[in-house]
Amino acid sequence: MNAELISVGSELLLGQIVNTNAAFLSQELAIIGVNVFYQTTVGDNDKRLTESLKQAISRSDLIIITGGLGPTKDDLTKEAVASLAGTKLVHHEKSLHNIESYFKKRNRQMSDNNRKQALVIEGSRVLNNEYGMAPGMIVSIDGTSIVLLPGPPQEMKPMFLNELLPELSKMLGEQTSITSRVLRFFDIGESQLETDLLDLIEAQTNPTIAPLASEGEVTLRLTVKHASVAEQKRLLDETEERITNRVGQYLYGYNDTSLMEQLFLQLKEKRCTIATAESFTGGKFSSMLTSFSGVSSVFRGGCVSYATDVKENVLGVSKEVVTKFGVISKQCALEMASCAQQQYDADVAISFTGVAGPDKQEGKEAGTVYIGIAGLSQEPFCYELNLAGRREAVRDRAIKYGCFYLLNEMKRWNKTE
Amino acid sequence: MNAELISVGSELLLGQIVNTNAAFLSQELAIIGVNVFYQTTVGDNDKRLTESLKQAISRSDLIIITGGLGPTKDDLTKEAVASLAGTKLVHHEKSLHNIESYFKKRNRQMSDNNRKQALVIEGSRVLNNEYGMAPGMIVSIDGTSIVLLPGPPQEMKPMFLNELLPELSKMLGEQTSITSRVLRFFDIGESQLETDLLDLIEAQTNPTIAPLASEGEVTLRLTVKHASVAEQKRLLDETEERITNRVGQYLYGYNDTSLMEQLFLQLKEKRCTIATAESFTGGKFSSMLTSFSGVSSVFRGGCVSYATDVKENVLGVSKEVVTKFGVISKQCALEMASCAQQQYDADVAISFTGVAGPDKQEGKEAGTVYIGIAGLSQEPFCYELNLAGRREAVRDRAIKYGCFYLLNEMKRWNKTE
Repeated sequence: MNAELISVGSELLLGQIVNTNAAFLSQELAIIGVNVFYQTTVGDNDKRLTESLKQAISRSDLIIITGGLGPTKDDLTKEAVASLAGTKLVHHEKSLHNIESYFKKRNRQMSDNNRKQALVIEGSRVLNNEYGMAPGMIVSIDGTSIVLLPGPPQEMKPMFLNELLPELSKMLGEQTSITSRVLRFFDIGESQLETDLLDLIEAQTNPTIAPLASEGEVTLRLTVKHASVAEQKRLLDETEERITNRVGQYLYGYNDTSLMEQLFLQLKEKRCTIATAESFTGGKFSSMLTSFSGVSSVFRGGCVSYATDVKENVLGVSKEVVTKFGVISKQCALEMASCAQQQYDADVAISFTGVAGPDKQEGKEAGTVYIGIAGLSQEPFCYELNLAGRREAVRDRAIKYGCFYLLNEMKRWNKTE
Repeated sequence: MNAELISVGSELLLGQIVNTNAAFLSQELAIIGVNVFYQTTVGDNDKRLTESLKQAISRSDLIIITGGLGPTKDDLTKEAVASLAGTKLVHHEKSLHNIESYFKKRNRQMSDNNRKQALVIEGSRVLNNEYGMAPGMIVSIDGTSIVLLPGPPQEMKPMFLNELLPELSKMLGEQTSITSRVLRFFDIGESQLETDLLDLIEAQTNPTIAPLASEGEVTLRLTVKHASVAEQKRLLDETEERITNRVGQYLYGYNDTSLMEQLFLQLKEKRCTIATAESFTGGKFSSMLTSFSGVSSVFRGGCVSYATDVKENVLGVSKEVVTKFGVISKQCALEMASCAQQQYDADVAISFTGVAGPDKQEGKEAGTVYIGIAGLSQEPFCYELNLAGRREAVRDRAIKYGCFYLLNEMKRWNKTE
């Protein structure tokens, strides 16, 4: 079944709101095995909406329209669909009742244009709106099913899940369903990953393998099509193994996780307490780690040692190191980590010092980064990086490397009481 | 000038990412008076991309395509456009050089498919990519200007603003232009603001006044249409004055600024050094403040005192306060701020302690927040808040209030040497 989405609303064409409906619907349709080939956005304009509808009918089995079901003059979706279907709008008692009770609940005066929302396309299957006033509809034109859903996500989503999804499943019958598994990689570029896996990517048809790069990470989306869930899992496992045999050392997690979440889970599992000493990252590592609830069981705290004399007088980095090597140095990173581990009494501490940019510092280029790790019952050690990108990108990238390095150390470590 | 946007990428059709590019471009085009009539999303599929392009060329003066300029096999935007233009791809020396230095910087191996990114459409105007590898392009087919931009927002946005926008202004010439001014308010709700300004909002036609609420802030977008820039300014100033006469005390800035940026500028102007003591915000305030380059002139550093004993033993909060009032208390916030100001030797220090949630702490509800301010040649003082929302929302909201309170204090303060 091939589908396309039409989003209606001038606020989308003016960029006043981001179209999250399209992403939600596409994701849901992919899960039940419906291919979405087009997403189109048009304004509250009868001519252009009708034109887009005609084209969609000519090429798709299913069209889902969101928006334009409101009470105001510029809401004209159902009018446009009705005239294409060669039918008219009729009064819908249940919807009017729903609207009236909606106003009664809020003891607000119901205006006439709200009654307009109780009109539905003649002969359509009406979808109930639990969280708003505009009913949804399903009509068929030339063998194409056309679904009308309200625009506000808080009304559209429940209507899709509770009212439309059962209908779609009926339409689809016993067909095969699609499942995806996303493998997340770090410290390897997209083109390198693709080069290493090219033959697999090209040979694979079920599951398919799709690389995607974003924010310094690369993901591989494995998408499998099969009626049996057990067989889906077997096919995904098999392909994942082929992949990890080649690039397993870069794999850090699945689906929607993050490097920081993986580190947090690892710290919790090993009951490993952590402290931080952050210079150019300015507390961002600590801030991200503390976004997880329950982190108080492992996170002790940290020192944002931004000014040089703060590194010395508050954190306790020796003046010698600062004068001899500077604050943008391996030696400073090592001492920052050691001081933080002792001062904050933690099993491990991680430190970040470097040049966020845009300007050089101590003659070091923007993007020069030193990450120190102290604790884990071993000698402190340090990683040096040269990162590209703007100030915030350098900070974010450095933090991801910090998570990745520490995560790999953690996996080898076990707490000894 | 009528424009439409084409977003290319199967990840969009699978709903893996939300299309924020379309919103950004639509907003920017509206500001310079370009009407966007369609936004279309197609996958990495030559046939459907070409089909959409042909249709767009037949009805629009300007087409902006985002995505499909990457190094991998499924990136085929420029190939599709080239074949429609009846021309070929040619090697672009400057872009190849850009790509090579990109890899040199990271000391990473450059793979062959990266060279593909240095190919551009013959006869196209090449747009430089400051933050990535894929160059942008402008070509003309049948009098329609077609612009190719990379998909990643962090590459697309600067290329649009720095490279494409000047070109578009040339194309537009002397036509009536639209300009917007966004007024940013804090500590007042959208409905309250709308109520206070209702008559203005309804009466205004040029400029129009559009309220928008997001992330605990409310903005008013004033949009004026006039050929003369001077007259545009006069009309905007006039309307702004009418607004600030009523709700000026909540106005904190204009356009894309933030409370944190305003605070940073105020600190710099007053040459006021600042330190932080963060508990449940986990370093996020410091992290946000240090996102501005040049912050080292005012930011000293801070203590992320997450664990209770860290508040006592590292930061120096008295055991009496902790045992008597708890860490979620006015008294603790005051001591945290005072300790940080002394320890980090700053003109002012701000502290955050509270319950991010989801669980209660010390019998206090999630959303209970205490913000302490010490320094500015006055007695330390504290604000208590009860914020709604989930964990991250509570943290963000608290930080915004901290900025807002401190900003207002700063405005009254002057450094005495």
